[in-house]
Amino acid sequence: MPKPSHREKFLKAGFEVVLERGYCGASVRDIVQAAGAPQGSFTNHFASKEAFCLELLDRYFVMVEKNIRLTLRNDAAKPLARLEEWLDIQIHFLKKAGMRNGCLIGNFSAEAGEHSEPIRQRLREIYHEIHRSVVYCLEAAVKAGELHTSADCGELAHFLYAALHGAILQAKVEHKPAPLERFKKTLFAVVLRPNPSRK
Amino acid sequence: MPKPSHREKFLKAGFEVVLERGYCGASVRDIVQAAGAPQGSFTNHFASKEAFCLELLDRYFVMVEKNIRLTLRNDAAKPLARLEEWLDIQIHFLKKAGMRNGCLIGNFSAEAGEHSEPIRQRLREIYHEIHRSVVYCLEAAVKAGELHTSADCGELAHFLYAALHGAILQAKVEHKPAPLERFKKTLFAVVLRPNPSRK
Repeated sequence: MPKPSHREKFLKAGFEVVLERGYCGASVRDIVQAAGAPQGSFTNHFASKEAFCLELLDRYFVMVEKNIRLTLRNDAAKPLARLEEWLDIQIHFLKKAGMRNGCLIGNFSAEAGEHSEPIRQRLREIYHEIHRSVVYCLEAAVKAGELHTSADCGELAHFLYAALHGAILQAKVEHKPAPLERFKKTLFAVVLRPNPSRK
Repeated sequence: MPKPSHREKFLKAGFEVVLERGYCGASVRDIVQAAGAPQGSFTNHFASKEAFCLELLDRYFVMVEKNIRLTLRNDAAKPLARLEEWLDIQIHFLKKAGMRNGCLIGNFSAEAGEHSEPIRQRLREIYHEIHRSVVYCLEAAVKAGELHTSADCGELAHFLYAALHGAILQAKVEHKPAPLERFKKTLFAVVLRPNPSRK
């Protein structure tokens, strides 16, 4: 039986390597080296790099879901403030790496989906789950009078999540958070315009 | 002297390979095979995969600039119609590959920028140039009364280009154009709301 601690080391160190270098750019050798594990031990724990990266994506999504519960789904706070907090958590995460790594969901969408059908299918489910929670928060904003009742929450949720990912791509190129700050500013000032009747 | 036709073959076939498999996922061997060129001939033409991909990116941007001249910068047509045409050309290009490949600029932003500083710098310039042309078109829309005079064209241009890239990422995951159609719909209905005085 392989030691569980080795498996954990692979996942922890491998996450950083795959986030930084990408699905194809990170080799099993890179992951083994980063984990400080003996050569050849990777296959005791994972059937392939694909299986490993699928598990990384699942663990990443656990973190995403936790942040969603704390923000988008937190009925105790005001809806648009929850949305802003959710975005700020993500921007904070990206800033820690100097905006160099981006988001595993976006990175895998650009690259891994073409190399792995299971990863592509998992990404589809993840997009769907995140979309549901953004819609939940926007619908709460409509109920609270923070957004106009005519707002199409489903479409707005798609649009804002797309713009977030595009802003992350540009922040990766710039190595600066400015594209994300700009995204947030325009999102709240133009796309999610306040309900005029509450002005 | 290497034959110029071989060089052209590499760039033509290599473009498809790199667009589909990514910067790290496409090996020099893949490119040589796709070009039907003899093993070892790649280095007669290109110093490295990085140099090759930088040239691919430059050629891609020539195509982008041509489309921009025909649409965003075409003063003979109505500004928002030009913007829509520009988006439609891109959606048509993506559809030809069944939405599997995405855009070289977005793909390289997610991946290659972390592996190559010259590519990252070139991407920065490209974002800047595209932004200038989107702003040009939006400012024309304000002058023509198609957009409200209070519109911040610089910020809107950043936001819409980010949302386009995010929608492309999701279309790659879905293998369907729906995310791009949704993006366009929300862009024109919500983000670029018509000037109310012209209604």
